[in-house]
Amino acid sequence: MKFEYTFTLSGTVSHVCIQDEVPSINTLIVDHDRRSLLVCDVNTERFARAVAGDTDAALCVLAAGEAAKNWTSIEAILRSAHSAGLGRDGLFIGVGGGVISDMTSFAASVYMRGAAVALVSTTLLAMVDAALGGKTGFDLFDIKNLVGTFYPASHIYMPVSSLASLPAREWKSGMAELIKTAILDAEDKDGEFLALLASLDSTHTIKAGDTLVECIARAARIKGRIVQADPKETGAERIMLNLGHTFAHALESSVGLGQLSHGEAVAWGIARACDLGLALGITPPERAAAIMALLRSFDYELAAPYPVGNITLFMNALNSDKKKKAGKVRFVVPSAEGTELVSGERIEPALIARIVGAN
Amino acid sequence: MKFEYTFTLSGTVSHVCIQDEVPSINTLIVDHDRRSLLVCDVNTERFARAVAGDTDAALCVLAAGEAAKNWTSIEAILRSAHSAGLGRDGLFIGVGGGVISDMTSFAASVYMRGAAVALVSTTLLAMVDAALGGKTGFDLFDIKNLVGTFYPASHIYMPVSSLASLPAREWKSGMAELIKTAILDAEDKDGEFLALLASLDSTHTIKAGDTLVECIARAARIKGRIVQADPKETGAERIMLNLGHTFAHALESSVGLGQLSHGEAVAWGIARACDLGLALGITPPERAAAIMALLRSFDYELAAPYPVGNITLFMNALNSDKKKKAGKVRFVVPSAEGTELVSGERIEPALIARIVGAN
Repeated sequence: MKFEYTFTLSGTVSHVCIQDEVPSINTLIVDHDRRSLLVCDVNTERFARAVAGDTDAALCVLAAGEAAKNWTSIEAILRSAHSAGLGRDGLFIGVGGGVISDMTSFAASVYMRGAAVALVSTTLLAMVDAALGGKTGFDLFDIKNLVGTFYPASHIYMPVSSLASLPAREWKSGMAELIKTAILDAEDKDGEFLALLASLDSTHTIKAGDTLVECIARAARIKGRIVQADPKETGAERIMLNLGHTFAHALESSVGLGQLSHGEAVAWGIARACDLGLALGITPPERAAAIMALLRSFDYELAAPYPVGNITLFMNALNSDKKKKAGKVRFVVPSAEGTELVSGERIEPALIARIVGAN
Repeated sequence: MKFEYTFTLSGTVSHVCIQDEVPSINTLIVDHDRRSLLVCDVNTERFARAVAGDTDAALCVLAAGEAAKNWTSIEAILRSAHSAGLGRDGLFIGVGGGVISDMTSFAASVYMRGAAVALVSTTLLAMVDAALGGKTGFDLFDIKNLVGTFYPASHIYMPVSSLASLPAREWKSGMAELIKTAILDAEDKDGEFLALLASLDSTHTIKAGDTLVECIARAARIKGRIVQADPKETGAERIMLNLGHTFAHALESSVGLGQLSHGEAVAWGIARACDLGLALGITPPERAAAIMALLRSFDYELAAPYPVGNITLFMNALNSDKKKKAGKVRFVVPSAEGTELVSGERIEPALIARIVGAN
């Protein structure tokens, strides 16, 4: 199976290719004068070497995980690019999951005021969410992605064969974003995508003709359309991708960045969004029940309050959310079809406190 | 005298206002819900306090000079913004010269993926060059502005009364960019702008109805038109602003960032561009002579080789120039009217070495 899509974000064309094999650097570098830098972490180095093949492309290998998503790693990427002699017509190639995608794209966006970037996504999370949409960044002052840019990759490869070695925790992390995408798909009026996810083989094995590959392609298409309609999150479309994330980012901050997988936090956040939507009369009870059942089937921690973490830190992090408007935190909740954005004015702080188990 | 211009760069409208007095924060913050952060250095703190008036706007005071143009300062700005509770609808206000403009705009461009920025320029250099055009950045690995973005300010105030206290060295630095702008003004076929500069009072006192204020306004208009035509330096217009800068950046790197004023380096670089233009038969001898005479009248160091600095470092820095194309450094040289871009293929390395005194 091979799926190809093209999206245009703020004038930049992003080519998305979901295919079996890891692409070769020669398919990424059309202009052979162009110098390139491969960026990966210790877990994805073998994929980066596969991309490089027998070329002498420069390689920057970072520590793995959210804890490495900091300025030190960005500086290491910039240093490698400078040492390799990349000009502003150089190409940064990020090979890995969401953290590598975000950091490679950020480094490219600020290197000499912007060099090109291509991504090779090797995790489910990166394929269905992080790699597509132009959001880049790193963590600062324990705030996730406090520093970042909008900078779409020109090419995004999703070699599904790379998922064969994905650890169970990473599968679980990516699955939460897949579920999120299925919930917010306003065109999926019959809940077909949610049903497809509920039918997935729990052993997560990628097989030829697999439903999972179709789900990945479907999620990429949905996300691509949303970000194309609203590339810089100034409209009404893109904010919907934030379903579960307002709660999730605060949870990740309060537990300590890197302690939870992003998807575990997102799954918990979707459960809280269901609670909020129910309390506000926006989420129909049967829809909330279906979403909760699907989340439970993938074994996510859904209890409120979350078993670990500090509730004071949580509330502080929630109140410094990036997407505040006029000083108020906004939430996305499931609606009868798709999702709805609820403005901060409509929500009593006591309701949020009750939903996250703060009292 | 008051001059007002409006330019549109990649969709962002930049309002430029050249006026006598320092503006009040109330004229900058139209939406009063919007939180703001004033950024300045120890030399411009009093102007920042004048902008703030009796409001409790947050203030971030940095060390002054090129040596402070680093990640540590950027992190300090981001920390102040975060502590002050700025959301992505917050406003960063940079009050100072080129370094403060570049760093405040960079921090704003990456804070939560982009907050608004306004600039209050208090030096000649910032007024005639740095504040206008959306280039942001800081220095890394001893390379000037290795890290940066294109991110135009929404409002740029140029309160000429702030120039009264400008040190002589800063005057000299800004004057080089004024001279550069006059040289590249292709519409100034009679050399009227250059003649106006040659007529300037060498004591640099701003007086009501002063020629200097007219020169500042003229330079701002010329630069505004160029950057509007080519906001991201992908066309043929903006590269012309690089006159003298390819040599200047390499000189600054080889002498050590912050040792020379930017303008001193640019003046020397313009002299080298004249040498190159003469050698290539592009710059008419009488035009080169007029430019050199004007530079001399402002007492710039014009000798090649430059009296201080390491020539090996210089050549290395020159060869890692940001604006290389296909691996070749390009140079802008004065032509009969305005300037011309010379591609790297046309230039023997030995010629450059001779011009900068490397052999």
